[in-house]
Amino acid sequence: MMSVIILGTGNVAQNLFEALLLNPEINMLKVVGRTHDSLSYFMERTKVSTDYNDLPKADIYILAVKDDAIKEVSDKINVSGLVVHTSGSVPIDALQKHERRGVFYPLQTFTAGKTIDFEYIPLCLEAKEDKDLQLLKSLGNKISSNVQEIDSEKRKILHVAAVFVNNFTNYMYTIGEAICEENQLDFSILQPLITETALKIEHLSPLEAQTGPAKRNDLETLHAHLQLLKNEKQRAIYKLLSNAIKAENEI
Amino acid sequence: MMSVIILGTGNVAQNLFEALLLNPEINMLKVVGRTHDSLSYFMERTKVSTDYNDLPKADIYILAVKDDAIKEVSDKINVSGLVVHTSGSVPIDALQKHERRGVFYPLQTFTAGKTIDFEYIPLCLEAKEDKDLQLLKSLGNKISSNVQEIDSEKRKILHVAAVFVNNFTNYMYTIGEAICEENQLDFSILQPLITETALKIEHLSPLEAQTGPAKRNDLETLHAHLQLLKNEKQRAIYKLLSNAIKAENEI
Repeated sequence: MMSVIILGTGNVAQNLFEALLLNPEINMLKVVGRTHDSLSYFMERTKVSTDYNDLPKADIYILAVKDDAIKEVSDKINVSGLVVHTSGSVPIDALQKHERRGVFYPLQTFTAGKTIDFEYIPLCLEAKEDKDLQLLKSLGNKISSNVQEIDSEKRKILHVAAVFVNNFTNYMYTIGEAICEENQLDFSILQPLITETALKIEHLSPLEAQTGPAKRNDLETLHAHLQLLKNEKQRAIYKLLSNAIKAENEI
Repeated sequence: MMSVIILGTGNVAQNLFEALLLNPEINMLKVVGRTHDSLSYFMERTKVSTDYNDLPKADIYILAVKDDAIKEVSDKINVSGLVVHTSGSVPIDALQKHERRGVFYPLQTFTAGKTIDFEYIPLCLEAKEDKDLQLLKSLGNKISSNVQEIDSEKRKILHVAAVFVNNFTNYMYTIGEAICEENQLDFSILQPLITETALKIEHLSPLEAQTGPAKRNDLETLHAHLQLLKNEKQRAIYKLLSNAIKAENEI
């Protein structure tokens, strides 16, 4: 039996809580948050507290808080167990107050009100001591089938790649939606295309999967599209990305 | 019973063929292509031909050929049925030789070797004559549950939006893959994130779904990412898209 305390109450904390609570080999001891309101999600199913100074003894303390709060919360708590954070971009040494420190980074995007099955979430783990890495792996393997050891340097790189495939991709959707709305078209008509674009690269490298006017150097369509786009920001993005795709052809 | 002839042999032709062939209310008469080789996919299951001058009588002739070949193939054939193309960006009048003309545009990305269920593909239909629009709708409804009437002007706009959510999104995946490969990281670790990013906007507007350092104006992470990115093209894209996302916050 492994005992865990979660510090934090946001989307990552909530999703992690669901995965840990369901597991019979994990003793979900407590969730600690800044306000009583923020703890309402958890309070009927586990102990909750706003007191960071009075933490029970646990095997692992998971700081599922915002990046810029990690150091602050870490410095505030006095514990002897393993302390980990869940961030993609913060180095392990933000937890330097604790000799036993690590990272438990679920490489996924979490949304309020939507619980995601941890089974398929890659968990990127790191720990200062090898025995703590083993402990983290043991925890990870109980809730996910995709557990990987990734150091702070590689995690930072993964996080940049994640910005492209997640944040920037979502922004492409935002532009698609804006174009539809400006022209009284229902954005939902693009959903099957969006889903298939994401799924097709399960079996095909994105480089091979590339299609479209820029890929086939169809200057007539590229020109016609720029005629249609009136928004300067959209035009700039259309030009830069089309030129980048065209340049890939020449490599 | 509705009789159909497909002209063209590529991914759209193949996917359309699968959907039409299976349907008991459709008489899939023939597939016509430029070469015998290109017809091998079809020849065991329907009649095939390389002769554009000897087409049997059919209710609908579907030109599933490349954009820049539509006019050429249209001008070559002499038929009295309804002639349609399947392109997102070509106007209906590329088929002007035919009094009875229309468009049957499946808004989806098709990949060689992967058959997609037409049931969920939005079919954007247009026809010059109302009775032909009804005929196209009748055909569309037999294979898809999402049939919409979209004129050439709106279809052109949809096609631009599709370039953003499909071609440009796929390019974001390409950059993510390149960053992983340069750093000996396995790109497949990003697949669950990519899938969830696409699925989450089924229930959330992409504008609301936006996350990441640019969205939260986290200048420290933005700066750290630019330090990591050495490729000038990737840096230019990172900057332009981050600035665009930051600007959305200010609206």
